Amino acid sequence: MARTEIASIGEFGLIRRLTEKFPIINASTLKGVGDDAAVLNYDAKQVLVTTDLLLEGVHFDLVYVPLKHLGYKAAVVNFSDIYAMNGRPKQMTVSLGVSKRFSVEDLEQLYEGFAIACENYGVDLVGGDTSASLTGLTISITCIGEADKEKIVYRNGAKPTDLVCVTGDLGSAYMGLQLLEREKVAFSGNEEVQPDFEGRDYILQRQLKPEARKDIIEALEKAGIQPTAMMDISDGLSSELMHICSQSNAGCRIYEDKIPISYQSAVMAEELNMSIVTAALNGGEDYELLFTVSINDYDKIIPLEGINIVGHITKPELGLFLVGREGEEIELKAQGWNSLS
Amino acid sequence: MARTEIASIGEFGLIRRLTEKFPIINASTLKGVGDDAAVLNYDAKQVLVTTDLLLEGVHFDLVYVPLKHLGYKAAVVNFSDIYAMNGRPKQMTVSLGVSKRFSVEDLEQLYEGFAIACENYGVDLVGGDTSASLTGLTISITCIGEADKEKIVYRNGAKPTDLVCVTGDLGSAYMGLQLLEREKVAFSGNEEVQPDFEGRDYILQRQLKPEARKDIIEALEKAGIQPTAMMDISDGLSSELMHICSQSNAGCRIYEDKIPISYQSAVMAEELNMSIVTAALNGGEDYELLFTVSINDYDKIIPLEGINIVGHITKPELGLFLVGREGEEIELKAQGWNSLS
Repeated sequence: MARTEIASIGEFGLIRRLTEKFPIINASTLKGVGDDAAVLNYDAKQVLVTTDLLLEGVHFDLVYVPLKHLGYKAAVVNFSDIYAMNGRPKQMTVSLGVSKRFSVEDLEQLYEGFAIACENYGVDLVGGDTSASLTGLTISITCIGEADKEKIVYRNGAKPTDLVCVTGDLGSAYMGLQLLEREKVAFSGNEEVQPDFEGRDYILQRQLKPEARKDIIEALEKAGIQPTAMMDISDGLSSELMHICSQSNAGCRIYEDKIPISYQSAVMAEELNMSIVTAALNGGEDYELLFTVSINDYDKIIPLEGINIVGHITKPELGLFLVGREGEEIELKAQGWNSLS
Repeated sequence: MARTEIASIGEFGLIRRLTEKFPIINASTLKGVGDDAAVLNYDAKQVLVTTDLLLEGVHFDLVYVPLKHLGYKAAVVNFSDIYAMNGRPKQMTVSLGVSKRFSVEDLEQLYEGFAIACENYGVDLVGGDTSASLTGLTISITCIGEADKEKIVYRNGAKPTDLVCVTGDLGSAYMGLQLLEREKVAFSGNEEVQPDFEGRDYILQRQLKPEARKDIIEALEKAGIQPTAMMDISDGLSSELMHICSQSNAGCRIYEDKIPISYQSAVMAEELNMSIVTAALNGGEDYELLFTVSINDYDKIIPLEGINIVGHITKPELGLFLVGREGEEIELKAQGWNSLS
């Protein structure tokens, strides 16, 4: 593939080349890339803002993550935060720090990932900042979204007897990461060793190309269900439940046999001699939604696909517990994926 | 000073400790730190968004930049972008990547700088993301501001005969940087050598603690002046004029003897045997405003303090020129501070 040095086209040439193919999709985007700030028109809607910083070697490993996938994932995990407020992502900004190792073509791969994510989720790229870095790749994304004031769902609205729901399945992204780490040696250039990914496509895709649960947010709206509390599961179910319970001043009981697990995750966990429940509770990067709904919405929730009721909210003095298969109660602890420890 | 390891209080403990002292100032901030996204209410106003990524070793050198000053400057340069749209900054998010070298107390210093900037400019801290980094300090700031739709000033509205105005003086931040680089040896721990900053306080302050021109934006509004094009001068006057002229499809003439230069800059330039005009045209980080106004506003502009008319806009075919003291015409080139080259 051609390799154009970034220095040869300069900062503005680079920004132009990377952003010129992004269309403006939303009427709320009055002015995107190309001025001191983007200009957005939100009229009577509320504005949601979320931001994420991704550092090479800490948050991603380019040995096994293709740049296009990285771009897609970096964008989608921000969209996920907006959906987790019951909002809709509309704009994003991307700032990059790039070392000399990367060519213009490399960054075009990354931006192709951004472009596909923007197209799939209807988001406009409206700005950013690109500069040199001394080491590796740094990606900072800010996503802006909209919501109706009365429909925003915070983390602090869960009430005793509310049902605790999770979407999709949990732990798959974590098991995908374990697989990639195990097979990493095969990426190191030794051509005799090929990574063994047969029958693992689902957990790999969950790690490399996660999706935000736009579909669930739309299904809840259609069904007339307003969650009482919601967040996305990026650090593991335990950790996120603790956020909701502490902000809502509540406790909870969740049931081990209700936690949704994928077949490929279970097989992988057995192979690695790991506990799949621990992976589901504490593995990160699922980007599924955790939400609570009033028990009165039980009949509306049941017909919806992709949603599992895993437990219920209690009074705060009852604590946070996982009820095991034999009825034993295990206190929930946050052992979530924490890049600072 | 006490040194608390970041790992000892964890990511959420750190965010709490750093952000708990930030008050909410603006009615438009419905929900700040602590959920998946911040929630802002902008009613009939337009929303402005700008973002900046700062990397240690590329954008700042902690040998001579105190963390508190760094925090102040990192915030203020983003506010400057919002003012440059004729907007008012209202909220910001801060994401940090931090290596083990930094303690909680170090980050508190940085956040003290953010806090002073937020207080001085009336901005709310509404979110962010903090994670480990393998090398050094990474700071990503996004600033959100508001503006009335009909008052937003873009870069593309300059018309022939418009006056070209700049605020304050130019090149001082660049000369301050030269001074700091020269005296850097004195920071290296050799106690016999002390940095010589006598009588250089102004250029040092311009480099280490720049201000955004909130005062000018308010003065223009009070005087009933609506600029036709505007941006802030972060990469040097030449480079910014080229942006305005290219986006406005125009040319310009500016006059060497009209370019505002500070006394300390001139002395420093002479001492270092550098051209002060080159520093004023191409030195970065002044964070002054460059704007154009209709010639009909001439009488309104003249009484305003801190604004200099440096030239005028022409038809595009007349090109972009600096007119020297002897009447010679020198074509403007962008040699601006460009961290990618």
